[in-house]
This record gives sequence, structure tokens and C-alpha cells, in this order.
Amino acid sequence: MSKQEIILGIDPGFGRMGYGVIEKMKTGEWQALDYGCINTSPKKSFVERLQEVCEAVELLIKKYKPTVVGVEKLYFARNVTTAIEVAQARGVILLCAVQAGLPVDEFTPQQVKQAITGYGKAEKIQMQKMVAIILKIKGKIKSDDAADALAIALCTGQSLWLKKTK
Amino acid sequence: MSKQEIILGIDPGFGRMGYGVIEKMKTGEWQALDYGCINTSPKKSFVERLQEVCEAVELLIKKYKPTVVGVEKLYFARNVTTAIEVAQARGVILLCAVQAGLPVDEFTPQQVKQAITGYGKAEKIQMQKMVAIILKIKGKIKSDDAADALAIALCTGQSLWLKKTK
Repeated sequence: MSKQEIILGIDPGFGRMGYGVIEKMKTGEWQALDYGCINTSPKKSFVERLQEVCEAVELLIKKYKPTVVGVEKLYFARNVTTAIEVAQARGVILLCAVQAGLPVDEFTPQQVKQAITGYGKAEKIQMQKMVAIILKIKGKIKSDDAADALAIALCTGQSLWLKKTK
Repeated sequence: MSKQEIILGIDPGFGRMGYGVIEKMKTGEWQALDYGCINTSPKKSFVERLQEVCEAVELLIKKYKPTVVGVEKLYFARNVTTAIEVAQARGVILLCAVQAGLPVDEFTPQQVKQAITGYGKAEKIQMQKMVAIILKIKGKIKSDDAADALAIALCTGQSLWLKKTK
């Protein structure tokens, strides 16, 4: 039997980073093993907060032993300062994954929306409801970042499946 | 006797990363121990190239045992895609420094120019000449990125000195 697929999805961030871990069950359905949001301490320096991001990713990898990591691509241009901060955290996240020997998949928000709802411009609330339905999570997923991360994980899973069946 | 000051200056980049290592001599003058430019392989994936950046920084830290690392801040907004790529590499560079237990100083290009030439809007060629004069490097410093990195290292050194004498 091949190793069970476990995917770590990450919504990259510097102050807040969403994560979602999903596992493929024998039935072929995905279930959420864990999801949440890591908040780095605003009292710490930027560099120390990058280190917090790294430690959080390393801990998640150690705990859940994912077979692949999916990370959302950055695209925004509204606020370049924010984009640059998030990008630095994203670099750290990618590095942690590759240092752990894991393959990394990257998806734009449009690709994630397309994968989950079939529509690249789906609304956030629609996306979150779909994620909860797919993963049979009751009620609203508390953190938006966690919901996004679960969506990224599901998109990564779908992409893997498409690659296999090509 | 306190440990001799050795500074690693880095001009962050994803495809090309400039580095410069300077050491304070007993006379109080700075000398360049090493400088150059790391080119990551365009044949590799983005994530693998981030890993190359990390390995290069780790190697420099291991080889020269700097007491502090100076890294240029990003500010540009002309091309957001490039800014985001460079920022991801920058995050990796900062992480490598902090993982090695080293303090990190960050400076804007204007601060570096101000520190070297006394003028925040100095031209690139003027900066490079000044760096070569200060460090007694004969001829033109071959790589622009290396010259920038040496300038960042010198700026970091000046800032340390200012802090000490405050």
C-alpha cells in the first residue's frame, strides 16, 4: 500500500499565517486533520517573526508528516510594502518545506477558487462554505486564513490527482 | 581583546545575490575579505533556487564567521513581480542569518548611499568608486551586486560604530 496522502496547505503571511492539513481517507474523501492560524508576535523584530514562521512550519511538518506542501502564490499589487513583507515570509515557508525534502506546489488564488468552486472569481464566503462542505466541517471555519489554507490544500490534492490520471 | 569585527553584507536577490565580507583591522580601517555574486541556476525550480540562496549564505557564515549581517531593504515598486521574487529570497537570507544566531541590520539604499558618500541620492558609479577607495580595492569591482554588498557591509559597520559611540 502506498503512503496515505497528507497535504499541508499554507496561506502565507507574516503577521498571520493560515494552515490546513488534510488527509485522503480510504474512501477517497479528504478529511481535515488540523487547521488554524499562526500569529507572530508584534512585539518581536521582523527577523524574529520570520523565525517564528519557520518554526511553525517545521512543527507542522514534524507533527503531520505531509507528503506535499501547497502554498498560495502572491499576486497583489495594491500595497507593495505589505506584498514585500508577506513575500519574505513566503520565501521562508518555501525554504522550510524544501529543507524537509518535501515537494512544493504553488497556486494562484484564482486557481484555488477554480479548483474548489469551479469558478476563478468565486466570493470568499462561497469558497469557505464549499471547503466546509467538502471536508464535512460543521459550522463556520473560525479563521479566514485557516479556511484559505484548507482550500489551498484541497487544490493541491486535486492537482496531484489530475497529474496521476493524466 | 574583543572579537574582531567581521561583517557580511548582502544585496538580496533571487537570480543574483551580491555578497561582501569586510573585517576591521587593528588600525581601524576596513578591509575586504571576500566579495562576489552568487548566481542561482535558471534551470532549477524557484524553490530549489531559494535553497541555493540559503546554502550560499550558510556557507559564507561558516567560512567567515561574521559578527553581524547587513542586508539591504527592498523598496521598489516598479515591477511588483520582481519585487515579490526578490523579497522571498530576502526572507530566506534573513532566516539563515538569524538561524545562525547572528544579529541582522537592515538599511535602505538611501541609507547606504548616505553612509558611503554622505549623499542619499548618489549615483551608482560614484558609490562603487567610493567603496573601492575605502577598501583599497584596485580597479573596478567586477560585479555591481558585489559592490553594493560591500557598501551595505560598510554601512552596517558605520552604524555599529555610531551605536557604540552614542
